[in-house]
Amino acid sequence: MIELNFAKARDGLLPAIVQDCRTSEVLMLAYINEEAWCQTVATGKAHFWSRSRGKLWLKGETSGHVQLVREILVDCDQDTVVFKVEQVGGAACHEGYRSCFFRRVSGQDLTVIGEKIFDPAKVYK
Amino acid sequence: MIELNFAKARDGLLPAIVQDCRTSEVLMLAYINEEAWCQTVATGKAHFWSRSRGKLWLKGETSGHVQLVREILVDCDQDTVVFKVEQVGGAACHEGYRSCFFRRVSGQDLTVIGEKIFDPAKVYK
Repeated sequence: MIELNFAKARDGLLPAIVQDCRTSEVLMLAYINEEAWCQTVATGKAHFWSRSRGKLWLKGETSGHVQLVREILVDCDQDTVVFKVEQVGGAACHEGYRSCFFRRVSGQDLTVIGEKIFDPAKVYK
Repeated sequence: MIELNFAKARDGLLPAIVQDCRTSEVLMLAYINEEAWCQTVATGKAHFWSRSRGKLWLKGETSGHVQLVREILVDCDQDTVVFKVEQVGGAACHEGYRSCFFRRVSGQDLTVIGEKIFDPAKVYK
């Protein structure tokens, strides 16, 4: 297992950027601790540490929209990773958009540019 | 100015993903505080908070390899941004690679897959 520089993060969490392996669109960013890192590498499915729930989080455990990790990149400082994934269900964002980054800064406003794939009310019951 | 959710980060820093606006390659990740955010929006050049130096950091201030911000995306929680940039000099990484993510996890090893653009010894004197 490749060792990441978890000591560098004050809270033991490192950012993981999730990128669509086909389109290169950035889908989301979440945080990993050592357990999430190991689980991701071992299972090939993206795992994170949920800061709001304070527990290990298999992305898609509720929605079924798991992320199949096809490639992992590590940065120069070994304190950030990129997961290149196949997004099951086509949407990474809990609001139903393909990407969490579905809004663009336009002067004083945020303009929605993302594609809505599912209705959250129907997926998270 | 769009307000980000700086209150969510314990240390007042939010991650900013830097992506090449033409190729969509993820070039680096760095952190912004409110000042770096304001300076980036105001000047169109990527600014971050340097955690190692404890000061505002205009990316490229030493190397000349500034990042011209062409588009900014904001995530659903307003606690992460993507800067889509034109990378002056063609390389974002202080080790001379186009991207800081120049290595891929291959089993127990990290394989260099990135392109080296410059010799750091010649740029950082």
